[in-house]
Amino acid sequence: MNQKFTIAVHGGAGTILRSQLTPEMEQQYKKALEEALDEGFQILQKGGSALDAVEKAVISLENCPLFNAGKGSVFNSSGQNECDASIMDGKTLAAGAVCAVKNIKNPISLARAIMEKSEHVMMNGVGAYDFAEENKIEIVPDDYFFTQHRFDQWLEARGTGVVKLDHNIHTEGKKFGTVGAVAIDSEGNLAAATSTGGMTNKKFGRVGDTPIIGAGTYAENGICAVSCTGHGEYFIKAVTAYDIAAQMKYKNSSLNEAANHTVMRTLVDIGGEGGIIAIDKNGNAVLCFNSDGMYRGVKSSDGTFFTAIYENEV
Amino acid sequence: MNQKFTIAVHGGAGTILRSQLTPEMEQQYKKALEEALDEGFQILQKGGSALDAVEKAVISLENCPLFNAGKGSVFNSSGQNECDASIMDGKTLAAGAVCAVKNIKNPISLARAIMEKSEHVMMNGVGAYDFAEENKIEIVPDDYFFTQHRFDQWLEARGTGVVKLDHNIHTEGKKFGTVGAVAIDSEGNLAAATSTGGMTNKKFGRVGDTPIIGAGTYAENGICAVSCTGHGEYFIKAVTAYDIAAQMKYKNSSLNEAANHTVMRTLVDIGGEGGIIAIDKNGNAVLCFNSDGMYRGVKSSDGTFFTAIYENEV
Repeated sequence: MNQKFTIAVHGGAGTILRSQLTPEMEQQYKKALEEALDEGFQILQKGGSALDAVEKAVISLENCPLFNAGKGSVFNSSGQNECDASIMDGKTLAAGAVCAVKNIKNPISLARAIMEKSEHVMMNGVGAYDFAEENKIEIVPDDYFFTQHRFDQWLEARGTGVVKLDHNIHTEGKKFGTVGAVAIDSEGNLAAATSTGGMTNKKFGRVGDTPIIGAGTYAENGICAVSCTGHGEYFIKAVTAYDIAAQMKYKNSSLNEAANHTVMRTLVDIGGEGGIIAIDKNGNAVLCFNSDGMYRGVKSSDGTFFTAIYENEV
Repeated sequence: MNQKFTIAVHGGAGTILRSQLTPEMEQQYKKALEEALDEGFQILQKGGSALDAVEKAVISLENCPLFNAGKGSVFNSSGQNECDASIMDGKTLAAGAVCAVKNIKNPISLARAIMEKSEHVMMNGVGAYDFAEENKIEIVPDDYFFTQHRFDQWLEARGTGVVKLDHNIHTEGKKFGTVGAVAIDSEGNLAAATSTGGMTNKKFGRVGDTPIIGAGTYAENGICAVSCTGHGEYFIKAVTAYDIAAQMKYKNSSLNEAANHTVMRTLVDIGGEGGIIAIDKNGNAVLCFNSDGMYRGVKSSDGTFFTAIYENEV
């Protein structure tokens, strides 16, 4: 018997308050999340792999200007768009990651190419770009990444000299801009993928948790798949994604117990704001965050299908 | 009562066979390891911090041309020396890391400056260099990193087009060039530090486990401090350093049990060659590797003091 197959996605977490988002904006975000879920789910439904599903869902979110990844990436201090991404295949523990890469339309596909077509797990900067070129990964000009609201954010941040997480003009608070997907396919294979444009006005080639296997992304068949979004520095120190898997492996915690411990206890204790999406070996999804909101959604073969933004919404 | 204080260091692991290392070379390696241990131990003996001790020990190894880190770094495919390093303070879980940085005399000190003088954990490439310059970290010209045997290795690797781990001209097999230190001070604080010049003839801005918190380096007071050396891609997939800590946290494993499980089972199962050095909250050191040898040593306030290269040597 085929097992339950499920995909979950996120589009970032942070201070996302109902009072600061118009109903129209809410609908736009939810529609984009639904599209990403649908694209991934269709693959699972046809018997495709979790790996293909998470890549496809993340591509959909990267191509949407609303989220801080791919097309919607924020500007760094030099007025450029630098992306980080990682992907992991729970079946083989194969992994691919890229940091500080420019002009790549879909950084998640570059991460997957690194995983599948090189001996390496992680590449950075110009070297990663060269690898992309050699492997026919789609390259786009600088202006592909131009979106007016990101540029306005950058102008504002540049004026203050402050490095900002994805501070949305529609909200006053913090928003951690990352996109991600986790999935389990009908054969029980788990996969996770995460992608980001980083922090507005970031300097010094800062790298967050998104491209770090174990911190921002982790997948292991029989255990779980995890994709994170939040204040990356804290997610690195807490080795967030793997900390959830480790409790399941070594303490027999359920995914729900493990995720809650890591996100609501460990991260809160060190001041790390954000959230995670995860799926266990039975296809159960957990979406857990300690911030005011997280753009998120789930679609499963058991009929579950929802998207949500705020706390206690579903 | 002050507790036992201990420092352990490594200078890389791999195929290091007695038949391929002259007694003179053996003595040179052991002397360099002893010097690094002494420099770190002196700090601990004066009541200094584990963090200061591991930084000092790693600086000593970075300054020694024998090891693949700092001065002795291998050449990448462009004939340049690019370094990775990371450091973690078990007392606060603060961490700093740098990848793909050029012209920094002591990458470990840059990692520490990132930890202490920025809001970030990880910086890469040119951005990291700019941060180093702003924070008065010592910058050296390209020719500082020129060593004849690394250049010869590069010429040889370039000829074959092969990416090589630190393949030493004195040995025929693989050698994973990394240096690292772990320590516990008299107040029970744990710290870990790791530094590398990467792989000979490496392309595409490859990043290994050394700058990845959780993979190459991890420290948490009350649990353990770990520094890794080995085939980085596998060490990233296994989240090696944190996997050891997680077994101690969630399964109550001893450091010895946890390290053996990770290095001799998990890494061996996925084909990951290399080793780790680690210290637990009681100041006990474990040095564990699945390769033929690992340059290593321990010095403790209980009188323990040794260096070793091969298996079963101590």
